[in-house]
Amino acid sequence: MGLFGGNGMVKVNIGFLGCGNIGSGVYKILGENRDRIKSNDNVDLNITRVLVRDINKKRNIDIKQDILTDNPMDIINDDSISVVAEFMGGIDPAREYILAALNNKKSVVTANKEVLARYWHEFNEAAKQNGVGLYYEASVAGGIPIIKVMHESLQANNIKEILGIINGTTNFILTKMEEEGIDFKVALTEAQRLGYAEPDPTADIEGYDAMYKLSILSSIAFNTRIHIDDIYREGITKITAEDTYYGRELGYALKLLAIARKEGDIIEARVHPAFIPIKHPLASVRDSYNAVYIQGDSVGSLMLYGRGAGDMPTGSAIVSDIITACHRTGRHKYMPFNNQESEIKQVQFNKDWKTGFFVRLTVKDKPGVLAHIAGIFGKYSVSIESVIQKGRGDRGVPLIFVTHKAGELSMKKAIKEVELINDVVRVENLIRVHQ
Amino acid sequence: MGLFGGNGMVKVNIGFLGCGNIGSGVYKILGENRDRIKSNDNVDLNITRVLVRDINKKRNIDIKQDILTDNPMDIINDDSISVVAEFMGGIDPAREYILAALNNKKSVVTANKEVLARYWHEFNEAAKQNGVGLYYEASVAGGIPIIKVMHESLQANNIKEILGIINGTTNFILTKMEEEGIDFKVALTEAQRLGYAEPDPTADIEGYDAMYKLSILSSIAFNTRIHIDDIYREGITKITAEDTYYGRELGYALKLLAIARKEGDIIEARVHPAFIPIKHPLASVRDSYNAVYIQGDSVGSLMLYGRGAGDMPTGSAIVSDIITACHRTGRHKYMPFNNQESEIKQVQFNKDWKTGFFVRLTVKDKPGVLAHIAGIFGKYSVSIESVIQKGRGDRGVPLIFVTHKAGELSMKKAIKEVELINDVVRVENLIRVHQ
Repeated sequence: MGLFGGNGMVKVNIGFLGCGNIGSGVYKILGENRDRIKSNDNVDLNITRVLVRDINKKRNIDIKQDILTDNPMDIINDDSISVVAEFMGGIDPAREYILAALNNKKSVVTANKEVLARYWHEFNEAAKQNGVGLYYEASVAGGIPIIKVMHESLQANNIKEILGIINGTTNFILTKMEEEGIDFKVALTEAQRLGYAEPDPTADIEGYDAMYKLSILSSIAFNTRIHIDDIYREGITKITAEDTYYGRELGYALKLLAIARKEGDIIEARVHPAFIPIKHPLASVRDSYNAVYIQGDSVGSLMLYGRGAGDMPTGSAIVSDIITACHRTGRHKYMPFNNQESEIKQVQFNKDWKTGFFVRLTVKDKPGVLAHIAGIFGKYSVSIESVIQKGRGDRGVPLIFVTHKAGELSMKKAIKEVELINDVVRVENLIRVHQ
Repeated sequence: MGLFGGNGMVKVNIGFLGCGNIGSGVYKILGENRDRIKSNDNVDLNITRVLVRDINKKRNIDIKQDILTDNPMDIINDDSISVVAEFMGGIDPAREYILAALNNKKSVVTANKEVLARYWHEFNEAAKQNGVGLYYEASVAGGIPIIKVMHESLQANNIKEILGIINGTTNFILTKMEEEGIDFKVALTEAQRLGYAEPDPTADIEGYDAMYKLSILSSIAFNTRIHIDDIYREGITKITAEDTYYGRELGYALKLLAIARKEGDIIEARVHPAFIPIKHPLASVRDSYNAVYIQGDSVGSLMLYGRGAGDMPTGSAIVSDIITACHRTGRHKYMPFNNQESEIKQVQFNKDWKTGFFVRLTVKDKPGVLAHIAGIFGKYSVSIESVIQKGRGDRGVPLIFVTHKAGELSMKKAIKEVELINDVVRVENLIRVHQ
């Protein structure tokens, strides 16, 4: 036994708000690792109360019946509990319970990205006023410790850019489409069959989930509050097998990217499908894996890759947060992030970002079409990097451009003019390219 | 100003032992980020003494002359200094100074992997006895916060496997060889020209540097002491352009891999060149980048990728360690790792690991050679996954096998027999394949 073994041991009582998939994972991990955590981390983690909807329901983990309760106040008002883990998800009643727990001087650990993205400033204020902690590692990218790394390993950095693949469902769908040449709907059905997508997949495929997570990540990175309303959002429902096919041919992989950039006091924050060069480390993030790629002025490029969901990976992050909650005292109880209204920095949001574009058209197989389109692009300062023109046919042939970096608004104007050209049958898709 | 702003501020005096490339980077980062660190992390970091060899030498950073000293005791015996950062490298006198600083109740931050791999147990014991901290994030993989992640984000995990690309020089050389089809010596010369390799490159190309780092990583991962003598080590000097060419054709990328695995109480630890499937996330780690890929029983696969060297990335990790050293108190001053002699677990080291093999031969262009070799492999339970046989010629043609997982010792016996076959001109190379 080391010099500080035994005597310094802290016994901590923990209350669970909810015990679904992730809560059960945490319960299991804490049971199996209790002794190791005692000896390595000097805390004895003791789950003393678990809030459930129905205390008589049969569960697939073995929880002592007498710690179950259907009354949240049994946890929120229990003075012996110092850490509350929230597993309910959604806004109501999670918001109310989290606030009540913080106000009763309990540290809170949560994976609830939606409630955090919307009410983080309230929680943070309550945590500060009550001298307790608020931890949320599992809210972004599941088992990947990106929050702790940003807070506690990158203090020497001005973070300039974050690129995230932070929604596993869409990454699974896009990987399937790309590698098997199948269409969006087929891939979505497969994802639903395997449990990677919900019966109602809207939050994932329309980019809401990634938007909440980007709000959290970029708020930490830029040390101000990035509201979800300031994030541009576009889902993957319009992506077709043709897009991924031609993208691959041009040397790109397609991802739902969450992008946040800061230059001076100007920030851009956006979630949309984007092609990235096949040699970029993010291109190798396949299936339901997540990754966050950060550009810091000291560290350079840093990427964290791992499982973005699932009971055990998410549980791994939550257990780490619970231990952190037990270790931290005083000022270090909460993360070094200032988001009181008075501390929010005045930033401007840029909606006319510069990006490359992949433009897929169906055009009539006639001479002069390409030159006509290139002329319009030129008028709007959009320069062309590569072109694919394929096949012959009466009803129209595919024509694909990839452009160099151009302004978002200029490009949209150019596309409106291109649509008016007689020999352009259709603008099939316009997808941004990260260069 | 937040509730705890101002009043809770801690002013910390720091002494530098050495001020070369990395020390200068840290000096620069601390100067530029002092105010931000004050407001975010509540510590005022103040460099009060810098040990240099020659106080009159012209430096490329602007250090106040009166804080320079050529006497280490001016730092080690200065009671106002509470954190010492060691930038000297090597064993002597770094070992002596680190111990003296710890014994004078100063926390120590170091990037010195060699002294750590050899004398960590001494330092750790001194840190515990004196109630101070020892931090070494920058000793492995430069700016990548792998040490903190293992200590403070993966507590819920039994780590089963670590795969690391933790030497940037060799990764640069192998990337060049693979992508440009050039030979080892040409790539090494290029690496030296660009400053990625030392004039004497032995420590990098023979795998010593990666071995020190793997000793540190695996000791933390498995919570016991993995001595460098227990790590198998093989460099990249025998790799040829032909190996990388055929490997690529078979769908593999070649890396100098640092591998540590644990099953029960049996550990294997090895550093050697290895092919990995092109779809593995480690395959996209190019040029001088580093990455560490961890398999934990809760988190699943987790990879951290970034800059493994350079003054600014390494400085980023050191500054983070300095802030950690200032924040931690009591039991949490040092990492949760027990390596007092009495606490070292009894483990066995397996030298007969299972791995795939890439076997490149030159054989005579005669019928029956392939069958003969396959027969010998079969005798030693080595099964073949794929074969490439190319060309025709009198003086010998290339024949390449990739095997399924086989025992290291069996494979070596099989190769000895293959060498005796009359129609086998040469066994050109034998490279392990990570499957």
